[in-house]
Amino acid sequence: MSAGTGGPDSGPENGPENSPSTATGWLVIAGLGPGDAALITPEVQAALDQATDVVGYFPYVARVAERPGLTLHGSDNRVEVDRALAALRLCAGGRRVVVVSSGDPGVFAMAAAVFEALETGPADWAGMDIRVLPGITAMLAAAARAGAPLGHDFCAINLSDNLKPWALIEKRLRLAVEGDFAMAFYNPRSRSRPEGFGRALEILRAAAGDDRPVIFARAVSRADENLRVVPLSQATAEMADMQTVVIVGASNTRLIDRPDGLPFVYTPRKVEA
Amino acid sequence: MSAGTGGPDSGPENGPENSPSTATGWLVIAGLGPGDAALITPEVQAALDQATDVVGYFPYVARVAERPGLTLHGSDNRVEVDRALAALRLCAGGRRVVVVSSGDPGVFAMAAAVFEALETGPADWAGMDIRVLPGITAMLAAAARAGAPLGHDFCAINLSDNLKPWALIEKRLRLAVEGDFAMAFYNPRSRSRPEGFGRALEILRAAAGDDRPVIFARAVSRADENLRVVPLSQATAEMADMQTVVIVGASNTRLIDRPDGLPFVYTPRKVEA
Repeated sequence: MSAGTGGPDSGPENGPENSPSTATGWLVIAGLGPGDAALITPEVQAALDQATDVVGYFPYVARVAERPGLTLHGSDNRVEVDRALAALRLCAGGRRVVVVSSGDPGVFAMAAAVFEALETGPADWAGMDIRVLPGITAMLAAAARAGAPLGHDFCAINLSDNLKPWALIEKRLRLAVEGDFAMAFYNPRSRSRPEGFGRALEILRAAAGDDRPVIFARAVSRADENLRVVPLSQATAEMADMQTVVIVGASNTRLIDRPDGLPFVYTPRKVEA
Repeated sequence: MSAGTGGPDSGPENGPENSPSTATGWLVIAGLGPGDAALITPEVQAALDQATDVVGYFPYVARVAERPGLTLHGSDNRVEVDRALAALRLCAGGRRVVVVSSGDPGVFAMAAAVFEALETGPADWAGMDIRVLPGITAMLAAAARAGAPLGHDFCAINLSDNLKPWALIEKRLRLAVEGDFAMAFYNPRSRSRPEGFGRALEILRAAAGDDRPVIFARAVSRADENLRVVPLSQATAEMADMQTVVIVGASNTRLIDRPDGLPFVYTPRKVEA
């Protein structure tokens, strides 16, 4: 469990050995996967079982079972750094803290926010026992449901322009098509920015043509799961919301029809010279 | 567990409802994660517990516990489509088959090979109960160990030129730098192709300069785990082997020094306009 080469195991069962100021506190940034409890790793479950505090966006915290000795700290979205600072302060005070994200915490989720917050805090916070535990990220859960659309080189792009210029998103879309990567898009569409995803689809059609398969995967592994596969020519912005991951195939991505339900979508491993 | 929208649960406990020719057979393509059993999802474990046959590359099959009623079919690497065909035939014969991959089966692993094989077989194979179960892929396990280096837009590139022209790899590297993506590289180096990764590093230095942090993550979560973080100027081909995932930061990727061990490496969520 150690992040350092050849370092001692610093799993949740052990106290930190190098953070005298924090006594027994630790902070784990954990991925809960896409929704189904059967997709939570035993490693993450063990951390949750030993935590004194769980910190995160309300709907993710709601997925953690209450028990005596555990305090749940749900907060609204768009306050990621405040939430991360609160978690770091709890850890510095000796608590055993799990910051929960949906999916994988390192993919458009809380891990980067915690490190941003760590840089604003006291220097000795960097000596605390802080670990990131991976989870099943939304694009890989969605890809598995559809077949293997990310079976060869691919890009993951966050389509939200809350934290980066829209022009950079457009540039990355064009370069991803030029490189013939398959693509996975997180946060395709929000109420505050309904036009962005439509523009992204226009850029993709102009660069990649009408035929690429597009997978709209909403709420994968949850009760309201919904998958849809359409050619790029038929993809519309309304097919996505903020619960949706969108995957666009590369030029060689193929469909295999099934007698019922959706086709399998996969990207072959081989690219001809 | 259904791949189709609103379809019935077709988990391992249920027989297929739409494949009269296959009786009770099913085929699951499952990701075992990077090595530690604590990173295997309960969903994958449940499939293994109900399988009659496990098919895969020898060292991955060796990670599955033997038990009465379970046949383990280990095979050499570079025979992925033969292995996939054998698994599909077992399924068609009514067996409950798990094809195992390390990491996630959809990321440079067996899922695409199974769909390639499916296309060469009888048309009614497409009606069999075939499902892909995601796993913790190597780049996300490695990223978690290091911090959050893939915390913003990123590309995943297989550096092996066994199945694609080397020129395409070079093109993708240049475009990934031009788009300022963080990058994760699978299969950086093999005995049969020792020079390729060195050339990749030269291309990256020419395009991105000397300072990008490079993470060499070998055998993450296994007993021989080894992590190393160096600037691009100091990265050498010898730092990687086929057990290594290599992550290269974007232009804004940052290091946070720790009093002991490796620094945290993370890519902030925000990109300035």
